[in-house]
Amino acid sequence: MADEFARIAAYFAPLAGPEGRGLADDAAVLIPPPGRELVLTVDQMLEGIHFLPGDSPDLIARKLLRRNLSDLAAMGAAPLGYLLTTALPPATPESWLESFARGLARDQEIFGIKLFGGDSSSSLAQISLTATLIGHTARGAALSRAGARPGDGIWVTGTIGDAALGLAARLGKLADPTGYLTTRSMLPDPRINLPLAGIATAAIDISDGLLQDLSHLCKAANLGATLHAATIPTSPAAAALGPDYLESRLTGGDDYELLLAVPAANERALRTARGTLPLTKIGAFHPGEAVTVLDEAGQPMTFTKQGWQHF
Amino acid sequence: MADEFARIAAYFAPLAGPEGRGLADDAAVLIPPPGRELVLTVDQMLEGIHFLPGDSPDLIARKLLRRNLSDLAAMGAAPLGYLLTTALPPATPESWLESFARGLARDQEIFGIKLFGGDSSSSLAQISLTATLIGHTARGAALSRAGARPGDGIWVTGTIGDAALGLAARLGKLADPTGYLTTRSMLPDPRINLPLAGIATAAIDISDGLLQDLSHLCKAANLGATLHAATIPTSPAAAALGPDYLESRLTGGDDYELLLAVPAANERALRTARGTLPLTKIGAFHPGEAVTVLDEAGQPMTFTKQGWQHF
Repeated sequence: MADEFARIAAYFAPLAGPEGRGLADDAAVLIPPPGRELVLTVDQMLEGIHFLPGDSPDLIARKLLRRNLSDLAAMGAAPLGYLLTTALPPATPESWLESFARGLARDQEIFGIKLFGGDSSSSLAQISLTATLIGHTARGAALSRAGARPGDGIWVTGTIGDAALGLAARLGKLADPTGYLTTRSMLPDPRINLPLAGIATAAIDISDGLLQDLSHLCKAANLGATLHAATIPTSPAAAALGPDYLESRLTGGDDYELLLAVPAANERALRTARGTLPLTKIGAFHPGEAVTVLDEAGQPMTFTKQGWQHF
Repeated sequence: MADEFARIAAYFAPLAGPEGRGLADDAAVLIPPPGRELVLTVDQMLEGIHFLPGDSPDLIARKLLRRNLSDLAAMGAAPLGYLLTTALPPATPESWLESFARGLARDQEIFGIKLFGGDSSSSLAQISLTATLIGHTARGAALSRAGARPGDGIWVTGTIGDAALGLAARLGKLADPTGYLTTRSMLPDPRINLPLAGIATAAIDISDGLLQDLSHLCKAANLGATLHAATIPTSPAAAALGPDYLESRLTGGDDYELLLAVPAANERALRTARGTLPLTKIGAFHPGEAVTVLDEAGQPMTFTKQGWQHF
């Protein structure tokens, strides 16, 4: 592998925005957009924890950015750029870095972001990666996990549970003939274009699983919630697997869909704001503590686990 | 080890500033100081690469912050706060996290910074850590590695090479009877209080070794440089080891002293700005490419290696 400085020049300097100063200084310099608040988040992806050895470097790079972009989306923030750390075993081939940088470049284009800076190192055995994303919102407009009120509807973007099924497919535990579930697991769609300020009272992105992330919104607002299983949006690929996978879908992580609390009075504004983005109401918040899922007969369902942290 | 949410509540939420929103949201929210530019940097510390298994978690935490604070210092920026990632093997004891959080708290107090957010994960084998530091400067005042001019003096803060000798002592390769060199290796002093805007034409922190970091300043300005070995500041503990260690000191990393280019006309302002901080002129920039070190007889010295990336 080429030395650290040659690698930075070859693969990362071309990705840098002016804030990154050609990656030639000790730090990046950002002139904050006037009158805006900055929104900052960091997530890591570790080989063997967040991705499998042998996964495509291109897709690892894009998922690293997208997991962080999803956190910005949950705050109602628009992305500006990012800082990156890479720690790679010395035997990592140049082709790995080429593919990784290509993935970053592609998503930089899609999401309108630039590389601001970073740090690269060797590692003893596994690859470890982090991205720090910087976004911005209007003053006071950043969403929070707290803020849901009794009676607020529970809404989700997209379809739920595809990523967990996709991971199971990648591990050989179920069939994914179209590859749709696998793609959903490896290349999530951060919902960054949904203008939620003044519409949602609370928001979170579904990274730990629908039930666990819903319980975060409930705890933050000191409320309970009831979901109707039949209304939880299901992709055709997930539906084809039949009803046995419902628990996996509700407790599986990595969906990166948004979970929102929306008062009835704001539903019209939500429908206007969403554009073409699929949005589904799946339940409501109410006084109490429990998160309950009702089956089609209106009976509470029981699950053996609630959340998921990693594989 | 307690679960991720319990660990965050116990160890990290008490470190958070208001920007961190109790570490309960998907991202941090920062109102930029009016009229200022933000300066952003990230560095990682990996077990077996940047620290040794068994090193004190308190000192690992503080060095993680200080390496990043040193990058802000090299830009002339004042620190505001940081984002943190931790990846810990499942067997990591609670006492490790307690000590790590204590170290963060201590340096937060010393440097006036707060935790803004982060991400925690399990890891397969080694501990890996990153910190993203956010600082600020006046508009247009951030320093750069480029900008040195022929005739500018080369200045350094503190003493040079102690950290490399301290690492050698920790590895049993030399004696450090007072422990001074070991402390310099494990707990660097980021020089964040030196007002350099309008005084230095270029700056870098010495993380890769004096000669390598000087060559970065030279390349960025398309200049050469000559140093006088006898003027390079030496701690009493390093001096006690004798002259054989000069090469280790000039090529060893981890000093986190500042290396500055300062025109003669600004030397008076530099002496005023430094307060009680030791500052030494060790050479000058000139046209050319080479970095030359002259011995006391004025003869060029030769070294077997120039730089150092990690151990």
